[in-house]
Amino acid sequence: MKQRKKICIIGVGLIGGSLALQLHEKKLSSRLTGVDANPEHAATALELELVDEMLPLEEAIAASEVIILAIPVDSMVSLLPVILDKIDEQIVIDMGSTKSMLTGAVKGHPKRGRYVATHPMWGTEYSGPKAAVRDAYQNKAVIICNAEESDEDALLWTRYMYNKIGMRLLEMEANAHDLHAAYVSHISHITSFALANTVLEKEKEENAIFELASAGFESTVRLAKSNSAMWVPIFMQNKENVLDVLKAHIAQLQRFCTSIESEDEKELLKIIQEANLIRKIIK
Amino acid sequence: MKQRKKICIIGVGLIGGSLALQLHEKKLSSRLTGVDANPEHAATALELELVDEMLPLEEAIAASEVIILAIPVDSMVSLLPVILDKIDEQIVIDMGSTKSMLTGAVKGHPKRGRYVATHPMWGTEYSGPKAAVRDAYQNKAVIICNAEESDEDALLWTRYMYNKIGMRLLEMEANAHDLHAAYVSHISHITSFALANTVLEKEKEENAIFELASAGFESTVRLAKSNSAMWVPIFMQNKENVLDVLKAHIAQLQRFCTSIESEDEKELLKIIQEANLIRKIIK
Repeated sequence: MKQRKKICIIGVGLIGGSLALQLHEKKLSSRLTGVDANPEHAATALELELVDEMLPLEEAIAASEVIILAIPVDSMVSLLPVILDKIDEQIVIDMGSTKSMLTGAVKGHPKRGRYVATHPMWGTEYSGPKAAVRDAYQNKAVIICNAEESDEDALLWTRYMYNKIGMRLLEMEANAHDLHAAYVSHISHITSFALANTVLEKEKEENAIFELASAGFESTVRLAKSNSAMWVPIFMQNKENVLDVLKAHIAQLQRFCTSIESEDEKELLKIIQEANLIRKIIK
Repeated sequence: MKQRKKICIIGVGLIGGSLALQLHEKKLSSRLTGVDANPEHAATALELELVDEMLPLEEAIAASEVIILAIPVDSMVSLLPVILDKIDEQIVIDMGSTKSMLTGAVKGHPKRGRYVATHPMWGTEYSGPKAAVRDAYQNKAVIICNAEESDEDALLWTRYMYNKIGMRLLEMEANAHDLHAAYVSHISHITSFALANTVLEKEKEENAIFELASAGFESTVRLAKSNSAMWVPIFMQNKENVLDVLKAHIAQLQRFCTSIESEDEKELLKIIQEANLIRKIIK
């Protein structure tokens, strides 16, 4: 496998910044270049030594052997075809949370083979370069989508990188990915946003929330701190799946409503015991 | 303040067992007696040395200076008046998650003053004596309800105990407590149960959930492992408040539905940014 140590990360926030720390630590990069449209983030990324230098996009692409995208998925869809237009033999990898629209946007592109669509299943509710975490990604799953559309050497290097940073590799078609991502990630963010809004709306005395909030509340609501610029395009791009699971979720909440309203304790017990089956899956 | 070191805990599960560990550690008890209707739990509590002995209810009450109830709130409502009938100058404290029905059930009881209604805001999704945790309760809030109905010495000792185990004391009327508890605790459990059911229903391939589930999913769904025998009576006793907040929550989810369906990105951004205000409250 050809050594590729000149790596550029487009978007040095939570996802790109945390990857940068891993690339350094696992000695995957000799020279790490950052690109960021936000000058404040660019300055912070340098200051925190997430990257060795910040460059404008064109220069960064020209100077790199691997180009990694870690920007909101709407920017991804506009930028990826532009990048493929500019590259030669570089490898381009994206780390976005949706895959159908993105792989669709470059389907048939003459450089499609140089691109590998991936989704590392890691994140936190924080954003920006200061949110970068040293031990990110380890022991988490990463999904490679539509692998058959990528060149063998591009796939090989991508797998090598994710293995090195301790991730479990899975492969999936982009459509299947988006379906599963709606169930195990996107809906969790919506329930958390909606729960925050419910409580903020109801509890006009914020002090009461602050004083009483238990660990249980914090755990169900913490994702509500997540960045809107990242999540709006995810929900839009995965609209059909997200709506499908959201409607199913509202129906489940309505089962609770009905059984509590009618004081049907047997049904309530049954619904909760069904939910308890999640114990088999989440340790 | 009169020293009271003969303490009995009725219900040696997660809540009672964790308190037992603290009472030992903070040297609040000289002799700790357990009562439990479940013989398996009784045996485990002894084996784990959560308590010094297990006794039948009547004997335990007669042998104790303080009686603490940590059982599901429906059993609490039946048992508390019976206990008050039997006591002399003992103090009776309950640790339940709902307060209106319980304080209502003993209002006007000749021994009402001996009873202190409390709700320590701590728990986990596990249950039974094996779930008892050594460092429970510390730095969490505990709410004393309707303090004016309790005798001064009973209140004093109760505050002393909760202070010793590191809790922040708050006082509230039972109705206000149940309202706030619906917002900052009960609804979180319902959303989590419902989310588990949504995903279990949709993801027939459990493997996919298992493989892909991220930390975000785990955090929003972990409460779905909570014990149905504990939670059904909580929802029933706090029916009006729970329904009120649950309906508000469904309305919030419907806002997401509508804005995603109509691709109203501006509205979606606004809703998420509203939710982000939870950052002010949850660090």
